[in-house]
Amino acid sequence: MLDIILLEPKEPGNIGAIARVMKNFGFSSLVLVNPQCDYRSVTARNRAKHAQDVLAGAKIVPAVGRYHTLIGTTGRLGTDYNLSRSPLAPKQVALLSLPRKAGLLFGREGIGLTNKEIMRCDFLVSIPASPEYPVLNVSHAVAIVLYELCNVKKSTDHILPAHREEKMRALRVMTELIDQMIFPTSSMMQTQKIVWKRVLGKSMLTHREAAAIMGFCRRAMHLLSRQRHL
Amino acid sequence: MLDIILLEPKEPGNIGAIARVMKNFGFSSLVLVNPQCDYRSVTARNRAKHAQDVLAGAKIVPAVGRYHTLIGTTGRLGTDYNLSRSPLAPKQVALLSLPRKAGLLFGREGIGLTNKEIMRCDFLVSIPASPEYPVLNVSHAVAIVLYELCNVKKSTDHILPAHREEKMRALRVMTELIDQMIFPTSSMMQTQKIVWKRVLGKSMLTHREAAAIMGFCRRAMHLLSRQRHL
Repeated sequence: MLDIILLEPKEPGNIGAIARVMKNFGFSSLVLVNPQCDYRSVTARNRAKHAQDVLAGAKIVPAVGRYHTLIGTTGRLGTDYNLSRSPLAPKQVALLSLPRKAGLLFGREGIGLTNKEIMRCDFLVSIPASPEYPVLNVSHAVAIVLYELCNVKKSTDHILPAHREEKMRALRVMTELIDQMIFPTSSMMQTQKIVWKRVLGKSMLTHREAAAIMGFCRRAMHLLSRQRHL
Repeated sequence: MLDIILLEPKEPGNIGAIARVMKNFGFSSLVLVNPQCDYRSVTARNRAKHAQDVLAGAKIVPAVGRYHTLIGTTGRLGTDYNLSRSPLAPKQVALLSLPRKAGLLFGREGIGLTNKEIMRCDFLVSIPASPEYPVLNVSHAVAIVLYELCNVKKSTDHILPAHREEKMRALRVMTELIDQMIFPTSSMMQTQKIVWKRVLGKSMLTHREAAAIMGFCRRAMHLLSRQRHL
């Protein structure tokens, strides 16, 4: 279980928004370190929407507790030579297997984490952003890190991508159709084949879509052959 | 240039937050279709923080304009058989090369896009989230999609990852050190070598960190050899 730890948050709206996005990504353990505002205010509750349980279950603590692994977050990047601030990207953190008792620490709005707080962390994560304005709103930072860490990535799993074979079959049937169509020149026919290969290749077909395309081609071929027999 | 299009937004705070995260990820073209609130209100401006330029530059239009490619966003997933709602994941969209004139359309807060609006889109993108509560705040949805589409992922580029060779060299020096250390059994020594191989392997070393580890090992070896000569 990953604790989402907010250090001295002062905007109830941010706390509510964070509770919501935690629930969106399947996280539930919110820890507020020495909060500077009322996390149960109307503003916080309005922003939490259907994550009232996460908000109400927030743990209030006077200081950051002990974790097997404590991950800090920073918008301010050091250089390669500033060892304490050289961070991982969220995508890299997503590749690590986090221990059971891990905490993800977000700094104060606007100020972030001090160097001392950063040294307490096992490592840092930073969201790559525009050098012109790299500092994200804290709830956006939480959203992006949890989006990467989320392992309920499964919600599109019921939408089956076409197997390679299905894609190839759809392409084969499309090619048969092109062969049966009349084009002014053979090079135009060849172009068609190439185009369709690329279009079907790029479109990340689902199982259902591949089937539908084959149905389309077969229907067209059927109609073309009837025409020829008239 | 990608237009970020908000359909009939009604929360000024969301508009401001979206302006901010657009700037965070290097986007600047905000389009508000028939807004239901004042996008220049104090709330919007406060949330936009250092992205006042993006907010002030918002284009107000009565209806969604024409785009080479219009990408819709949805939190409600269809099944594989609901063709109009079968979406790509943000990571998949990031792999596509978007045309110059593309629009990313976000629906009304709470309601999203209607089926008719969805049919106008070339394709849909949906953020994989918890089935228990899959509907994200619109500014969080924008943040995550732009994070994936962002090509200013370069802000950590000045932090050089260690080359494979540097990593291997660090490991070799660590192994030499282990060889010079006294362990009760040879199997304990072997364990050490394996552990360090894994630890250094997993730690995504930077250039600077690899150099520092070699320095550490050499120093330790130097001290050990001095001790032996005493």
